[in-house]
Amino acid sequence: MNFLSDNSAAACPEVLAAVARAGPGTSAGYDGDDWSRQLDAVFGNVFGKPCTVLPVSTGTAANALALAAMVPGYGAVVCHEEAHIHVDECGAPEFFTGGAKLLLARGEAGRLTPEGITAALASHRGDVHQVQIKALSLTQATECGTVYAPDALAALGEHARAKGWRLHMDGARFANAVAKLGCHPGDITWRVGVDVLSFGAIKNGGLSAEALVVFAPELVDELRFRRKRAGQMPSKGRFQATQLLAMLADDVWLRNAGRANAGAARLAAAAGNRLMHPVEANALFLKLRPGEPERLRAQGFGFYDWGDAGSNEARFVIAWDTPEADIAALAAALA
Amino acid sequence: MNFLSDNSAAACPEVLAAVARAGPGTSAGYDGDDWSRQLDAVFGNVFGKPCTVLPVSTGTAANALALAAMVPGYGAVVCHEEAHIHVDECGAPEFFTGGAKLLLARGEAGRLTPEGITAALASHRGDVHQVQIKALSLTQATECGTVYAPDALAALGEHARAKGWRLHMDGARFANAVAKLGCHPGDITWRVGVDVLSFGAIKNGGLSAEALVVFAPELVDELRFRRKRAGQMPSKGRFQATQLLAMLADDVWLRNAGRANAGAARLAAAAGNRLMHPVEANALFLKLRPGEPERLRAQGFGFYDWGDAGSNEARFVIAWDTPEADIAALAAALA
Amino acid sequence: MNFLSDNSAAACPEVLAAVARAGPGTSAGYDGDDWSRQLDAVFGNVFGKPCTVLPVSTGTAANALALAAMVPGYGAVVCHEEAHIHVDECGAPEFFTGGAKLLLARGEAGRLTPEGITAALASHRGDVHQVQIKALSLTQATECGTVYAPDALAALGEHARAKGWRLHMDGARFANAVAKLGCHPGDITWRVGVDVLSFGAIKNGGLSAEALVVFAPELVDELRFRRKRAGQMPSKGRFQATQLLAMLADDVWLRNAGRANAGAARLAAAAGNRLMHPVEANALFLKLRPGEPERLRAQGFGFYDWGDAGSNEARFVIAWDTPEADIAALAAALA
Amino acid sequence: MNFLSDNSAAACPEVLAAVARAGPGTSAGYDGDDWSRQLDAVFGNVFGKPCTVLPVSTGTAANALALAAMVPGYGAVVCHEEAHIHVDECGAPEFFTGGAKLLLARGEAGRLTPEGITAALASHRGDVHQVQIKALSLTQATECGTVYAPDALAALGEHARAKGWRLHMDGARFANAVAKLGCHPGDITWRVGVDVLSFGAIKNGGLSAEALVVFAPELVDELRFRRKRAGQMPSKGRFQATQLLAMLADDVWLRNAGRANAGAARLAAAAGNRLMHPVEANALFLKLRPGEPERLRAQGFGFYDWGDAGSNEARFVIAWDTPEADIAALAAALA
Repeated sequence: MNFLSDNSAAACPEVLAAVARAGPGTSAGYDGDDWSRQLDAVFGNVFGKPCTVLPVSTGTAANALALAAMVPGYGAVVCHEEAHIHVDECGAPEFFTGGAKLLLARGEAGRLTPEGITAALASHRGDVHQVQIKALSLTQATECGTVYAPDALAALGEHARAKGWRLHMDGARFANAVAKLGCHPGDITWRVGVDVLSFGAIKNGGLSAEALVVFAPELVDELRFRRKRAGQMPSKGRFQATQLLAMLADDVWLRNAGRANAGAARLAAAAGNRLMHPVEANALFLKLRPGEPERLRAQGFGFYDWGDAGSNEARFVIAWDTPEADIAALAAALA
Repeated sequence: MNFLSDNSAAACPEVLAAVARAGPGTSAGYDGDDWSRQLDAVFGNVFGKPCTVLPVSTGTAANALALAAMVPGYGAVVCHEEAHIHVDECGAPEFFTGGAKLLLARGEAGRLTPEGITAALASHRGDVHQVQIKALSLTQATECGTVYAPDALAALGEHARAKGWRLHMDGARFANAVAKLGCHPGDITWRVGVDVLSFGAIKNGGLSAEALVVFAPELVDELRFRRKRAGQMPSKGRFQATQLLAMLADDVWLRNAGRANAGAARLAAAAGNRLMHPVEANALFLKLRPGEPERLRAQGFGFYDWGDAGSNEARFVIAWDTPEADIAALAAALA
Repeated sequence: MNFLSDNSAAACPEVLAAVARAGPGTSAGYDGDDWSRQLDAVFGNVFGKPCTVLPVSTGTAANALALAAMVPGYGAVVCHEEAHIHVDECGAPEFFTGGAKLLLARGEAGRLTPEGITAALASHRGDVHQVQIKALSLTQATECGTVYAPDALAALGEHARAKGWRLHMDGARFANAVAKLGCHPGDITWRVGVDVLSFGAIKNGGLSAEALVVFAPELVDELRFRRKRAGQMPSKGRFQATQLLAMLADDVWLRNAGRANAGAARLAAAAGNRLMHPVEANALFLKLRPGEPERLRAQGFGFYDWGDAGSNEARFVIAWDTPEADIAALAAALA
Repeated sequence: MNFLSDNSAAACPEVLAAVARAGPGTSAGYDGDDWSRQLDAVFGNVFGKPCTVLPVSTGTAANALALAAMVPGYGAVVCHEEAHIHVDECGAPEFFTGGAKLLLARGEAGRLTPEGITAALASHRGDVHQVQIKALSLTQATECGTVYAPDALAALGEHARAKGWRLHMDGARFANAVAKLGCHPGDITWRVGVDVLSFGAIKNGGLSAEALVVFAPELVDELRFRRKRAGQMPSKGRFQATQLLAMLADDVWLRNAGRANAGAARLAAAAGNRLMHPVEANALFLKLRPGEPERLRAQGFGFYDWGDAGSNEARFVIAWDTPEADIAALAAALA
């Protein structure tokens, strides 16, 4: 019973079928094929805004490329202290940007606020001896399994705009956020000022393709060159494109995410006061009781320890394909 | 009738079937799945040598990562002036190494020799004012559609070893070289001193996975970290691993490559004195006659112009799945 | 009456005389002159240990080069959250290392402890998804005007060694620390495990030369190449070397630093409960009373605001040449 | 008798006197002192154009910073195959730019032409798979001791402008070029489109300061941050500024350079058919006769071998302070 990560989930049937269809037959290489050439229009339609879509092979690559197009080496990115770009990408943003710094802010349950950002930067003078802040990066859904509401994002977007910062969104679980909020995807991206979205697909039933969705046209050329230079421009681009198209067709992405969210909601009800954060997407962060981690593992539940060693904190992730029976069993074990 | 590139080729049935099999069902994320965990043993068996296999998403990533593990920023790599790493990777080796230089040598038909390398470096002093040469990179099969014989590689490997350089092999079309030479893959890699091989699979019937095959164990840790940091560690590693395993099983890789090579050989016979280089793998480089490029395109043949503008030089690539009829038609058109 | 920074101080007579002597006449370029060739022996004698001395033009260059020789791009450096390398070098360490991260720890009055470091890294797993810690950087005297005692350094050095980390010391005000402690310079450097010391001279009466003092011979070659590549190898190295030699001759460096320390001690006595930190070197950090910053400035005292805006915190630095009268005047104003 | 390099020359009396004057007394740190604040106006007056002057410690730093402000990591710089930035800076341009490539062109006697550049780039497609050319770098006087005439520079500047490239000038021996041409310094810089000049002073009687002279105001901010981040912003900027001001005052720079040029001209007359290039600045490149290198060295002349090993090629550099007697002796030995 695997609650370790949505990386453990299967590829969904729609994606697998799309790959099978694109597999045989000759196509133009790189981005010249029929699938790749549909991407901009299909995403533009979903987001309600013209955009450029650049598939990449991992979320780390998506995030690091986006930031590299926004921030020079002497620049800095403001992000949450628990942001994936800071904690779990082995320094990819620093590598791709040529050594820009991540300046860390705090915020409850993984969510930043303008006030939290201002507090974190209180002693940042910004003169020539210091790095120059050029971007704000937000994760939606957050690393704590919460979701920014549209008005919270609007306030953050306004804060960034007033400071002259670009706005990046790490959307490794963007679908879960849209499914939770029931909003238009444009409401939490370009309408609040997002310049580039790292659109996650792999955790949500994909196979090997994530996408940069670029709303700021002036960043497109830079991103194309940086993507190639980073070894992220596949010679058979059709296989990435077809996965992304299959995810968007018939709302597969939202259906998959909704299923995962629903599972998490069921478990949240069972977890009671163990919950460290509100459950708004597909992950639970629990403060387990002493001995409980061992007991749950003995019952066959797989999950990660979280936080500091010995804290009894744990993360459970529900995927689009987590069996109902597993969810029910975990709910029972927690109740 | 597509002779543009083997990037246009289909994914082969064995690879597609493997992806379809790995698609459903839950696995460990990253490299923890059953397929990924077989890679070292399967490649080690094929190459006759323990090795570590790190899948990546493009050949550019493979090459640039390999060089980055061998060469510091103040270092240099010797390569052929037509090497893909110099001409067609948008500076990826420079990016991944932190700015190492590629020092260019010449050699007929894409092949370097110790003498050619020595001549190219005649004025390189190597003192503190200059970059420090740390690696030699060879392409097998070469960018000119030729192949290094094992003894030629042995001489180059000896040259590198005597100088204290690492040896990298860009094997985007490594299978075509092995199929041509009929040798053991070890004979043209670790036995001649290759430290890291960029093992190409995508052009040869793959879908989205290439591999770093690391024969120098002291480079493995460095490569793991650099791979993650470059956004090249996929969250569902099973889908890359299964492709690579499918290619090696039952010699699919050699069968596919052999088919492409055979097509090229048929066309070489028809091309006569238009041939600029011996045809030893799956590509032809032709000095076409005036007006011939236009005429061939009018007949429906797709191919790239090569060399300087207006030179009437052209490249034709035959893939594992290029239809026999297309090959026959092109042979007739050239004859 | 300038208490802004020891960067405002004059070059001391001994250094100016040395430059005047080295000015006329022909010498070998780069490091081949008679002065440059004495550096290793003279520093080795002062430190009681063979070492290699590489002059550079700024403390930022010294620090960033030292770290770059210790830490790969996927690496990390542990340092104090107020460390100059983090706050005031515009990201130079990240630039020179190729994007390594600085992981920030806390410690009272600018001093780290093994416990503080352990606490800061409690959630750092160190797996392949995270940067790899490779060095600890300490500032002696610290950014808060305090000094590490030899036994505190020994404990930190032991902690680093046990973890497999290199040890760097930012000694922009190293002379002030030695003068305060009255110890042998080896007692707080190589004897506690320092691999590379950034030896500061400019603030202490120098003109344009700082020095890397390298105690770890295996880092020397790497540093030579990186220094050249960073544009830090001067074509007339004699002018940097002669300054450094003049500082060490007849204990000029300790005399200058001692004078500055003594001035700070006098002011500390006057500052009373405004002191935020113990005064152990040549700087005071004061929590001024409301209105006091304005009043002191009106009296002609120059100093920097410190900490968060509006906090009434201020820094006063005493240099080797700060006039006694100015110190007396400030002492009176504070008393 | 030292003809090795103008790096061996003394600092001239005017520069030494200026340093001595600036030495004592308190000043603002970094660039806030009285000397630093005069730089823009003084250089602007000499060049006949408003400009920003940023002192740095070496020519390598000047060149690499200038290129880094013009060229992104995925970019390229066109330069002569013998350019100092390619041959003798240990990869500094690649380091500072984040891995941009230098694309090498040929041209007689160290001078590029539009035709030579076009020929070198004949096969450069410039698509997404290749680096993007963003700048042209010229050396004035060249590495071969020749000088570009103003109209030759105008043609190159026009070529660059038409291509959308920035124009950088490596002026390590810029004074020698101006002295030779007898032109206004503006005629060979901003009037032909130079965006940033690396203004050399150290070889010409300076001590430790070169300067970036920035004619393109939109590059200034970027250069300020990159300079700090590169450890090239000195804490006592007054000592660099005063050297540069002393060089420009009363045409010291042109008088020094003129003296060196005159010495080279005398030797050129004596060298006869050994001359490999016209002698237009302060260096001679000679094809010596067999045995002559040894004989000249036995007579006490110091000089560097040049070109490939065993070629009997040699470089002789005349400095502002090379004794007349040494020049006469060498002329006699060659005649």
